[in-house]
Amino acid sequence: MDMQNSLLNRLFDAGLLIETGVDGLYGRSGAFEDVITRFEALIGAFGAADNAEAIRFPPGMNRAHFEGSGYMKSFPQLAGTVHSFCGCELDHMNLLQCMAEGGDWTKGQEATDIVLTPAACYPLYPTIAKRGPLPAGGGLYDLQSYCFRHEPSKDPARMQLFRMREYVRIGTPDAVREFRQTWMERGRQLIETVQLPVEIDVANDPFFGRAGRMMSNNQRDQNLKFELLIPVTSTARPTACLSFNYHQDHFGTTWGLKTADGETAHTACVGFGLERIALALFAHHGLDTADWPAPVRKALWG
Amino acid sequence: MDMQNSLLNRLFDAGLLIETGVDGLYGRSGAFEDVITRFEALIGAFGAADNAEAIRFPPGMNRAHFEGSGYMKSFPQLAGTVHSFCGCELDHMNLLQCMAEGGDWTKGQEATDIVLTPAACYPLYPTIAKRGPLPAGGGLYDLQSYCFRHEPSKDPARMQLFRMREYVRIGTPDAVREFRQTWMERGRQLIETVQLPVEIDVANDPFFGRAGRMMSNNQRDQNLKFELLIPVTSTARPTACLSFNYHQDHFGTTWGLKTADGETAHTACVGFGLERIALALFAHHGLDTADWPAPVRKALWG
Repeated sequence: MDMQNSLLNRLFDAGLLIETGVDGLYGRSGAFEDVITRFEALIGAFGAADNAEAIRFPPGMNRAHFEGSGYMKSFPQLAGTVHSFCGCELDHMNLLQCMAEGGDWTKGQEATDIVLTPAACYPLYPTIAKRGPLPAGGGLYDLQSYCFRHEPSKDPARMQLFRMREYVRIGTPDAVREFRQTWMERGRQLIETVQLPVEIDVANDPFFGRAGRMMSNNQRDQNLKFELLIPVTSTARPTACLSFNYHQDHFGTTWGLKTADGETAHTACVGFGLERIALALFAHHGLDTADWPAPVRKALWG
Repeated sequence: MDMQNSLLNRLFDAGLLIETGVDGLYGRSGAFEDVITRFEALIGAFGAADNAEAIRFPPGMNRAHFEGSGYMKSFPQLAGTVHSFCGCELDHMNLLQCMAEGGDWTKGQEATDIVLTPAACYPLYPTIAKRGPLPAGGGLYDLQSYCFRHEPSKDPARMQLFRMREYVRIGTPDAVREFRQTWMERGRQLIETVQLPVEIDVANDPFFGRAGRMMSNNQRDQNLKFELLIPVTSTARPTACLSFNYHQDHFGTTWGLKTADGETAHTACVGFGLERIALALFAHHGLDTADWPAPVRKALWG
């Protein structure tokens, strides 16, 4: 915890991150953003030969799609629904009165049709399903968006709003498993290119509650999730910076995704936690990018 | 309305925008994103000599700062608060039961400390105030973020989640008025560079309710807001793509922003509606960027 605080404070002092008064919600300096831009270009270079279809969703998604995804079963504590004032002028006067008295004015807000995106790929599956059966060979998509997770923390690697870059493969079980294997190898190479220590391990998602513990165990037992770990604030507990997920037919069944042969499609994704990777670079190579090792600078800035 | 629907459908058919089932919430294709990236680079080129400090806030801001800004007085209908599930396992079982029965499960969501950013500059003022008095000459900031406004619409130029690029000037009344004048001229040049028809007019914000009508009139009478208008879905009612706003001492007083001389700082901003500009480009030059006029292609892609 001390090392987390210490890195966070050093990033504030250097102006790379900017306090907002809410844990896990930070402004980014131009230098911080530049590292993310350059690292994304490097990801793009590693993935370029595959000709993924680029789609960029905004940081919110259709609530009906979110509800259909099953996210509230697994991670209710992390989701963020968007609510608005839908009242008349009298309601507005009461609301302002409530605010002036320091009351909880948010009670009157009503849920909109939008939920904050919990992971970059959630809006993708219903979108692709709507197109009809996949082409022969399946589909490959390149995504990036801000994502929200309600987990306020002083750990700079655990932000409430952060960006996730993803490649998503939809197709036969063999095709999506091969995709995941390819990216586990590429991910390791990519991180070694920027001279960060790397370790890949089986992992599980933070499923909610006691029933969730069983889901976590199943996920581990079946090797459905791997993470690429880099020490950021702790060597004993390195941070997951990339994850490699095989969803089997979960999203295929949920959204009716079909291969060209009419089979239920399987899906897999590789996700890059862009802020976490930037933090790992600053933690290992120093807070001034001008001082980073020449090969790292060359890999990022050319 | 027909022309709005028609442009929106053409954008869907061309795959430039992607339906999500919610009006004003769309995915963007790689080609659409590329136009925004290139136009942002052009904005940056026009503003480069000023050496603005780049800051990128995430698409949500501290609720306390939002509350302090006065936004709920003026535009309560547009704001989006972020709510989460904060219950125990039993609450979770009830929530899932409610969802399974098609009930309104969102009633149990509780407000978090985060509100969606209504305009890119809202998180800036309290951040700058926290630094203490401004340096001599004041400050100049370069911002961009996704912004949320709860106004579902079939007009593609009225999205619920869209990106706003902004330059914000904080300083003496003379300095901020000069900044605004400079950007009104630059904005016109910028848009002429990409061969779009342009008109600048005095404007007002969509203040809520009857009391709001008086605020709108005041804003117009005092020439506090100008908009750069481009026909997108209608020549009779062109779309505001840039706005030039002089806030007088509103944010300076609200947040205690002080010039180096200890006076309350004035503020002004120029905001670029990035999706609107991209829509204007597609509406005027065609849906395939390869067919755009050579000088436009050169201005954007070099």
